[in-house]
Amino acid sequence: MTELAPASNGKYIVGVDVGGTNVRAGLVDREGRIVAEARRPAVAQGGLRATLRVVNEVIHEALEGGGSAPGEICGIGLGIPGWHNSARGICLFSPNFTDSRNVPVVAPVAEEFQVATYMLNDVKTATLGEYYFGAGRGYRHVVMITLGTGIGGGVIANGELQLGASEGFAEVGHMIVETDGPPCTCGGRGCWEALAARGAMVNRAIRAIQTGRRTALADSVGYRLGSITPIHIVQAAEAGDEVAREVLEETGKYLGVGIVNLIQLYNPEVVIVGGGIAQAGRVLFDPIQRVVWSRAHMVPASTVKIVPAELGDDAGVIGASVLVLQHVQEVA
Amino acid sequence: MTELAPASNGKYIVGVDVGGTNVRAGLVDREGRIVAEARRPAVAQGGLRATLRVVNEVIHEALEGGGSAPGEICGIGLGIPGWHNSARGICLFSPNFTDSRNVPVVAPVAEEFQVATYMLNDVKTATLGEYYFGAGRGYRHVVMITLGTGIGGGVIANGELQLGASEGFAEVGHMIVETDGPPCTCGGRGCWEALAARGAMVNRAIRAIQTGRRTALADSVGYRLGSITPIHIVQAAEAGDEVAREVLEETGKYLGVGIVNLIQLYNPEVVIVGGGIAQAGRVLFDPIQRVVWSRAHMVPASTVKIVPAELGDDAGVIGASVLVLQHVQEVA
Repeated sequence: MTELAPASNGKYIVGVDVGGTNVRAGLVDREGRIVAEARRPAVAQGGLRATLRVVNEVIHEALEGGGSAPGEICGIGLGIPGWHNSARGICLFSPNFTDSRNVPVVAPVAEEFQVATYMLNDVKTATLGEYYFGAGRGYRHVVMITLGTGIGGGVIANGELQLGASEGFAEVGHMIVETDGPPCTCGGRGCWEALAARGAMVNRAIRAIQTGRRTALADSVGYRLGSITPIHIVQAAEAGDEVAREVLEETGKYLGVGIVNLIQLYNPEVVIVGGGIAQAGRVLFDPIQRVVWSRAHMVPASTVKIVPAELGDDAGVIGASVLVLQHVQEVA
Repeated sequence: MTELAPASNGKYIVGVDVGGTNVRAGLVDREGRIVAEARRPAVAQGGLRATLRVVNEVIHEALEGGGSAPGEICGIGLGIPGWHNSARGICLFSPNFTDSRNVPVVAPVAEEFQVATYMLNDVKTATLGEYYFGAGRGYRHVVMITLGTGIGGGVIANGELQLGASEGFAEVGHMIVETDGPPCTCGGRGCWEALAARGAMVNRAIRAIQTGRRTALADSVGYRLGSITPIHIVQAAEAGDEVAREVLEETGKYLGVGIVNLIQLYNPEVVIVGGGIAQAGRVLFDPIQRVVWSRAHMVPASTVKIVPAELGDDAGVIGASVLVLQHVQEVA
């Protein structure tokens, strides 16, 4: 792998959010603003190597869209789901891609564009994005969680993104909150995400309907219960539906218990909640806040704020650009 | 508070372990060896201010015992249970002392000896002790837990002791591992220490005896069930007693689940288990290790080591000396 130094005089950075369904590249300025972008679907059921060719394509597109040439940017940052050895630029394993074991990620991108290229886990890059340019600005102790199919986590402790011994710091979704709880996709039991993520929330609604509870939820999906999403539940709750409210209350309880643990273990100033469901607002945040006030220790809980993420879908692209920005200037 | 600079040419440091029952001061050399020490009982049901007078006495004794004068030491480090603002040298609150709210700790000691004085929570100082001179030597990512009446924690992440926003980092004993679990002394439910610390272990033994199970445990305390200690349980298990083995297996399961969480949240190279019960050896560590292998995620679990603390009762005194040592030389 050629070691390329980042160009500290570049005006822009390219940040790439490599998802299992979409690949998105953005031309980002030094204040974290996306000035041009391009996106494409990831290769259907593709391997990581095939996806990296798409990465190169969207980077070219974003550069052209912004009227920039590779020689004019500081470098490229890549946020990718999975476990990596980022110092060596290699993906160790990513559940989002077939054929992702020990795949070189940085080298093929750096060779194509001949600029300094960095990679990191996608939740950790999103955490950097929120820390530098979003809901984490001005703090030095930040926990970010992303709610979705699973629950991801990133931690800034004393101003430093924590990676741990093998880039596995803050594997929060598989924290056990119910020792003999329900099975998790990881093979374990009682993991936080098995009780508080998307699937758990939807299953609570389906079970309530199946036991004959009256709820507008069933109507809203034409009784195709498999089509219920967290959005349906949030909308029904906001319209006053009692079953939907109970589902959010119960899900909020488990979300709250996990957040209580994160507060007690990381003692942050702020917990940032990201992922689509974080847009739900008070019907979700109120139950979480009640659990935190009643169950977290006074000392760390009294001062911590629990807030929604600010960058939304852009956190990945902006955070990936921070991977480069950190090398070319003092940030935050 | 007078700001005194540590004397970098001193041969020794004074480390003080301020417990609720004993106060112990040691004259510690720069390699973490205790060359002289003194201890006294803490003031019975005393306040922190009264205990600090005992602290001054044992420091004088330790200095005399080692043939040293205050002017010849680098400084004094104090490890004290509770929540502190260590930068300001103040104890915010300690459950181990009556009258401990907002008590200046550093000032009265520094004034008496006219040397640089530092303070920190006792579990965090013990973590520093094991990190520099005990089971954590050579690592950069260390989790330490102390098993006793409660469970305390300290974390070294990327070579840095983590304090969090308000010195509450790694409040591991009140991590919830059973959402609707048994009540904890903190007012919460299902906290790790309510399921895995001393009281939980002893209560499991007592319940087994009360349901009529045959066990040598009852004989060993002359049927005064309130006298059962973890030591009795460990000894009975080592002698093959089935009830005692089940108690350790069940306790080890909950200890293991909590350690699984710490591994997934902090991704350490090593988890150091301290406190009296950590001496139990394989009857305790084997059940813990089984739970970790079966329930922790592959990536962080495959490389982490779970080991007993090496410094035993000395971790507090030695760790307190590290508070000073950090200021006078590069350590580790």
